Amino acid sequence: MTAAIRHFLSFLDYTSADLTELIDLARRLKANRADLHREGLHGKVMGMVFFNPSLRTRTSFESLMAKLGGHAICLSVGGDTWSLEHRDGAVMDGAAAEHVREAAPVLSRYCDLLGVRTFAGLKDATEDAQDAVIRSFARHSTVPLINMESTMEHPCQGLADRMTLEEKLGNARGRRFVLTWAPHVKGLPMAVPHSAILAAASAGMSVTVVHPPGYELNADIVSKAQSWCAAAGGELEISDQQINACQSADVIYVKSWGSSALYGQPQEQTKSFARHKDWRVDMTHFGDKDALLMHCLPVRRNVVIADAALDSRHSVVVDQAENRLWAQAAVVLRLCCTTEPRP
Amino acid sequence: MTAAIRHFLSFLDYTSADLTELIDLARRLKANRADLHREGLHGKVMGMVFFNPSLRTRTSFESLMAKLGGHAICLSVGGDTWSLEHRDGAVMDGAAAEHVREAAPVLSRYCDLLGVRTFAGLKDATEDAQDAVIRSFARHSTVPLINMESTMEHPCQGLADRMTLEEKLGNARGRRFVLTWAPHVKGLPMAVPHSAILAAASAGMSVTVVHPPGYELNADIVSKAQSWCAAAGGELEISDQQINACQSADVIYVKSWGSSALYGQPQEQTKSFARHKDWRVDMTHFGDKDALLMHCLPVRRNVVIADAALDSRHSVVVDQAENRLWAQAAVVLRLCCTTEPRP
Amino acid sequence: MTAAIRHFLSFLDYTSADLTELIDLARRLKANRADLHREGLHGKVMGMVFFNPSLRTRTSFESLMAKLGGHAICLSVGGDTWSLEHRDGAVMDGAAAEHVREAAPVLSRYCDLLGVRTFAGLKDATEDAQDAVIRSFARHSTVPLINMESTMEHPCQGLADRMTLEEKLGNARGRRFVLTWAPHVKGLPMAVPHSAILAAASAGMSVTVVHPPGYELNADIVSKAQSWCAAAGGELEISDQQINACQSADVIYVKSWGSSALYGQPQEQTKSFARHKDWRVDMTHFGDKDALLMHCLPVRRNVVIADAALDSRHSVVVDQAENRLWAQAAVVLRLCCTTEPRP
Repeated sequence: MTAAIRHFLSFLDYTSADLTELIDLARRLKANRADLHREGLHGKVMGMVFFNPSLRTRTSFESLMAKLGGHAICLSVGGDTWSLEHRDGAVMDGAAAEHVREAAPVLSRYCDLLGVRTFAGLKDATEDAQDAVIRSFARHSTVPLINMESTMEHPCQGLADRMTLEEKLGNARGRRFVLTWAPHVKGLPMAVPHSAILAAASAGMSVTVVHPPGYELNADIVSKAQSWCAAAGGELEISDQQINACQSADVIYVKSWGSSALYGQPQEQTKSFARHKDWRVDMTHFGDKDALLMHCLPVRRNVVIADAALDSRHSVVVDQAENRLWAQAAVVLRLCCTTEPRP
Repeated sequence: MTAAIRHFLSFLDYTSADLTELIDLARRLKANRADLHREGLHGKVMGMVFFNPSLRTRTSFESLMAKLGGHAICLSVGGDTWSLEHRDGAVMDGAAAEHVREAAPVLSRYCDLLGVRTFAGLKDATEDAQDAVIRSFARHSTVPLINMESTMEHPCQGLADRMTLEEKLGNARGRRFVLTWAPHVKGLPMAVPHSAILAAASAGMSVTVVHPPGYELNADIVSKAQSWCAAAGGELEISDQQINACQSADVIYVKSWGSSALYGQPQEQTKSFARHKDWRVDMTHFGDKDALLMHCLPVRRNVVIADAALDSRHSVVVDQAENRLWAQAAVVLRLCCTTEPRP
Repeated sequence: MTAAIRHFLSFLDYTSADLTELIDLARRLKANRADLHREGLHGKVMGMVFFNPSLRTRTSFESLMAKLGGHAICLSVGGDTWSLEHRDGAVMDGAAAEHVREAAPVLSRYCDLLGVRTFAGLKDATEDAQDAVIRSFARHSTVPLINMESTMEHPCQGLADRMTLEEKLGNARGRRFVLTWAPHVKGLPMAVPHSAILAAASAGMSVTVVHPPGYELNADIVSKAQSWCAAAGGELEISDQQINACQSADVIYVKSWGSSALYGQPQEQTKSFARHKDWRVDMTHFGDKDALLMHCLPVRRNVVIADAALDSRHSVVVDQAENRLWAQAAVVLRLCCTTEPRP
């Protein structure tokens, strides 16, 4: 991995080979789980800054740090701590009592590693595309920073997803990966679908994204995924024919996300979900094939995916969640080892 | 302890001898506290899922896991995490974003041991009696699960209580244990009084439950306690004569609980407390005897028990709280040792 | 350090030499950070009780305990736990479900060390001056207690501040320390300014406090600081000439606090801040001198201090925050070593 990359922020910063190297490490850690304490993280502390709640991310990082001999601190912004400003030059006479310009370097003195989770605001698509909060932390942290889901990407999920794909499929290259949109009760960010297609593309799979019109993903992300697909001799297609796409898939990755055209219009978004209720994934989507069913969790049962599918042999959602721990352990070890000790 | 019992959920699952064995281990751990780190929990992680707040439970588990060389993660459902659905077949279009069917197996991949706290809803007695949330976690967890207080029982408290009884009384068999109801400012669940009588009965004590009419405990729990009392040659009595019962007691265990007949009627419950204000325990309840004063804490001073009694030589409430740590350490060690490593 | 002092509550309990000894230990720990795990805190647990939110305090203690081989538990009163009563004799029929008389001894059984944070209520100056919550914890704890900021003092901040002063100035004795008031958006407690002048005075500096009329600090604290200044051959002055005082300073310590005359009158307090808007510190305050800029953080940029000053070479605010960790590590080690093991 390029020595210059000291944070783990975006798949766009990596080559496919960099990601392969991380996944190889993750698989070795998983295979030798009894030896985790020998990895030498004793006395190392990770600070996790949550702008949004978390079950898997928080628990998997806290557990892996403990198993590696270190410790993770969980900070909820606006709960355990003050709310944080990230805009340069702001006159801070509002709700935010502290600026990232202080918070990030101070946390860097207390911790050997930081993580930040910050969801898309879902009000202004241009603003969300800038991923400003995590970029601000990256600029002002003096220790390695991990993206624990930002407005644009969830690279830890992406890494776990690619690890799961290769674990289940053997060689994933050339296999058909279908990311299908699904309905929900409220608009959700696009970080997970973005990372899912980057993960599949980086593994050399053929990628199809199916969604109703108006649910387009970010063009830069799609274009990067496209180039990885092409490099592996495959392609990335976009379609609105859900059943057709799913029935020829090797992997059906289900995820709901909001329409950026309906940002800030929750009633219109709800109506749109109602119009597309039949995009809920059930057993008919699997046809005759032995496709894998993936979802990042949490999943609203019988809204996004029917019980019958989630409880079928197709589902690998729990394995996928477990791999978060191993993929993240690899990232943590790689970041802690490529960074020189602070003076 | 029966190898088949892999969770610690209910005193009803155990024989009196099983409980004796756990308490013996707890006493050995307490006597050799300097050697806790030799118990081999290094790298082991406990996930604690709190549907309700906690001081003693959370702190005692987090501390004992640290002292044993492991780590405990504290998750507040609805706070740190999403709220959870536990009903099978639910169409999840409401507040709950995740189902126990995913949450429990995923947490089982991150943690070596789980704990769940979930109070009675105090709206529907039949529903509370089913203890559905903890039963759902028990079904879907693939690692050992500890009941950190459910709608029906608080077995960790019960184990600590029995340990305290035997520590203070020597042989508790045949001694008089009085559980007395007390007034409060709001209706509380019955988990603690249930576990208190099970604990005393399992130690072979003679048990008297005193409460005003309308405050009956669960019949199945009372019947199990009765059979343990009978097996030890004693009996379980129910009475509404508080002073008489207390003045002949060796142990006065004070606890308030709500009337299941007044579930969902907070104003009627408040009036009932007001009518029974004089059930507050003070020094007159002790008569001439050297009885122990027990309470699970937290206790509302001068509402439930008068300062004079709580600050007297009778009170063992702090020792009782300390024993939570030792009793739970025994449970943790026993569950971690009888369970085969995951594949 | 006097063996009788088993808690770390107030600079008023210490001699200047006691504080020097603590800072010497802090500097040794910082210089030998790779050896922290040898300090022998394995299996030791600190319980941190937060009545108010925290970023630096919580993270620095949690990190240092992990690095020393121990563990810190973070409890938010009213959030993770019940709210707590501290008044003796109270009839607890209100919001508080538990009394410090139980909470402190129980936590003392689970933890080897406690910390409490409790801000001034800013409603009644006489009540705030009594520092009743932390005093109640100190009376009822049976293990060492650390003041993590109380209504009157923030001694951990004071210790870190004195460490920073001596680190940056070499010998601080006789140098000019100016504490300047600054405007804000709401009235804040005086704990930090109190500890700042005690810290500078204990280091033998000449101290000037500048504030608008009506913002007087606590007379007992000022008098103790004055006596330390005098013992070192310097003096403590109070002034309302901010620019003059700052331009002759070796150290400009900026901090906002509320007027005790305006307690409970938020609108009047806001008007007073507006009238004194020009007390915001910017580059003009530094004149020609190479003075240090200090602030305890969090700081509202461009309200309390201008960006230009905070981002200048004068600022040592991040070093100051880092030293919290080292100063507190020294306090923890000293308290854990001077205390006999519990029976």
